[in-house]
Amino acid sequence: MSAPPRIAIVGATSLIGEAVLDELRARKFPYSQLHALEDERTGGTAIGDDDLKLPVGSVSAFDFSLADLVFFCGRAALSERYAEAAAAHAWVIDGSSAFRGRAEVPLVVADVNPGALHTLGPRGLVALPGSASVALATALAPLHAIAPLSRVEVATYHAVSGSGRGAMEELASETVAMLSGRKARGRAFGKQIAFNVIPHVDTLESDGAAREERRLWDETRRVLDAPGLAINATSVRVPVFFGHCLAVHAGFERPVDMAAALAALQSGQGLCLIDPESSTEFPTPAVMASAPDKVYVGRLRRDLTRDQGINFWLVADNVRKCAAHNAVSVAQILVNRPQ
Amino acid sequence: MSAPPRIAIVGATSLIGEAVLDELRARKFPYSQLHALEDERTGGTAIGDDDLKLPVGSVSAFDFSLADLVFFCGRAALSERYAEAAAAHAWVIDGSSAFRGRAEVPLVVADVNPGALHTLGPRGLVALPGSASVALATALAPLHAIAPLSRVEVATYHAVSGSGRGAMEELASETVAMLSGRKARGRAFGKQIAFNVIPHVDTLESDGAAREERRLWDETRRVLDAPGLAINATSVRVPVFFGHCLAVHAGFERPVDMAAALAALQSGQGLCLIDPESSTEFPTPAVMASAPDKVYVGRLRRDLTRDQGINFWLVADNVRKCAAHNAVSVAQILVNRPQ
Repeated sequence: MSAPPRIAIVGATSLIGEAVLDELRARKFPYSQLHALEDERTGGTAIGDDDLKLPVGSVSAFDFSLADLVFFCGRAALSERYAEAAAAHAWVIDGSSAFRGRAEVPLVVADVNPGALHTLGPRGLVALPGSASVALATALAPLHAIAPLSRVEVATYHAVSGSGRGAMEELASETVAMLSGRKARGRAFGKQIAFNVIPHVDTLESDGAAREERRLWDETRRVLDAPGLAINATSVRVPVFFGHCLAVHAGFERPVDMAAALAALQSGQGLCLIDPESSTEFPTPAVMASAPDKVYVGRLRRDLTRDQGINFWLVADNVRKCAAHNAVSVAQILVNRPQ
Repeated sequence: MSAPPRIAIVGATSLIGEAVLDELRARKFPYSQLHALEDERTGGTAIGDDDLKLPVGSVSAFDFSLADLVFFCGRAALSERYAEAAAAHAWVIDGSSAFRGRAEVPLVVADVNPGALHTLGPRGLVALPGSASVALATALAPLHAIAPLSRVEVATYHAVSGSGRGAMEELASETVAMLSGRKARGRAFGKQIAFNVIPHVDTLESDGAAREERRLWDETRRVLDAPGLAINATSVRVPVFFGHCLAVHAGFERPVDMAAALAALQSGQGLCLIDPESSTEFPTPAVMASAPDKVYVGRLRRDLTRDQGINFWLVADNVRKCAAHNAVSVAQILVNRPQ
């Protein structure tokens, strides 16, 4: 791209929208214009701080021919309504679930399958996987490269910020209520989340699976280009503000050498391996908060019951690393590529 | 047993000791004497309420020939020191990990393998599995009866009360500190537990497994009498006061009929199956607190990736159901059996 792009952020006042803005500024991402846009329903007249205070415009009134690069950071309904129109003029990087299922739309984790962007012309749609899928694919990719994965069992520990700002306020206010001897309301998740865990993320479908569980399978195998890989997941919400965690039991087609697995993870793109020899060091959401640009892998160990299995634990900042960092990394690849 | 037994509770001031006392009274368990005992190190001069205030004596000064039935409810070190001496005179029901690994000591979940008590004479040791193993074995037993289990993957969501009263106070005080903008101390678990998750329970061993993960395998297959069953676990501590949860992915030697699995769980001993057809009802620790005498199973569903797998979620009160209720149920079987 010759001139710096004109950028628009749709859903700019959401947690992810604000994180995308932070990420653009932290990387000194080049742009000639920057538009912050929101649904009419959502409040907020400006985002950013004194250094860069942006007025928030209405997405319905925006002329997308004025943009070269558009980030969609809001609800799927917002993307469904506006993303295709925007993609007629610009590169559209969509963080919602709206287009993830479409085979013709590349589904990209910048650290894992940037090559999937090759089909994209000078405009068009890119979908980003959900945060837990981004984290899982980032950690599985280097392992799958040394030995084919056959079957992965996952249990998740989803932070409330995955459901947006209202869910975070709910956890805080429920916690205060319970410590004051009052009842939790359970509005954001249908049940109390303070000092509790809720065994599903997103809607339960008729076959009993939560949508997030199906997404983990569908999105991860597509990003890894491993159509035969089975991923069996249980997704669970925990009273944590930021940082999704996954307990991963990975099964391979043949026995795996632990030293090779360790080396693969140590040199993996976007990963940080916490010393598996240590009996006291392992990543947690609270610690990860201080360095949010990696997927942290810890407790790497042999599955005691078989040679074809290894277990590990991973933690990643669902808003900053898995959503905003991935979105801006995809944008960077597009902007930097030869015309 | 002809006369009502003389009972002693060692570790009577612990969470489990108090819960055993509550359980004995709730069941109107017959006894002629009731001794509350503690380690000298532990404070507490009396337990119970105005209806039954018990002085707490020192276990080192107690003459175990004055007891017919002894519950050990404290740390493993207390059991290691006194349980065998007590077992020379009385039935000893040990809730600690001290004797679980000994093949000659029956390891019993009253709802699952009461038959293991048959080897016991008019005195001697009985070991109880850890709380998570009790919950897992209770849920797997009826499934294993309709189709042999081959391999079970488990991720846990352990409540802090599993580490005793001090850990509960730690969660409460850390939460208050963080809501007040102060730093959490992270004393009980080595790391902050408020608004965080910690990916191990009990010590990490040299092969990378946490002790609790090995226990889940060893204890569950022994209680189920399924020596060939592989159980691969990740154990995780979450900021919940009471109620361990497990995400269970059960693999069978052959395809399993879902209707048969559902019927088996519905009629399972000590179980309560929450309607898997409902998209809004599932057990959580907060709800389970109001009816703590069952292991609650929810989100029963087919593993989407294969016919030989089913997934479910379980919640059980780790102190009352898995520890105290099991201990007193074992005692009841012993006391009721023909002389």
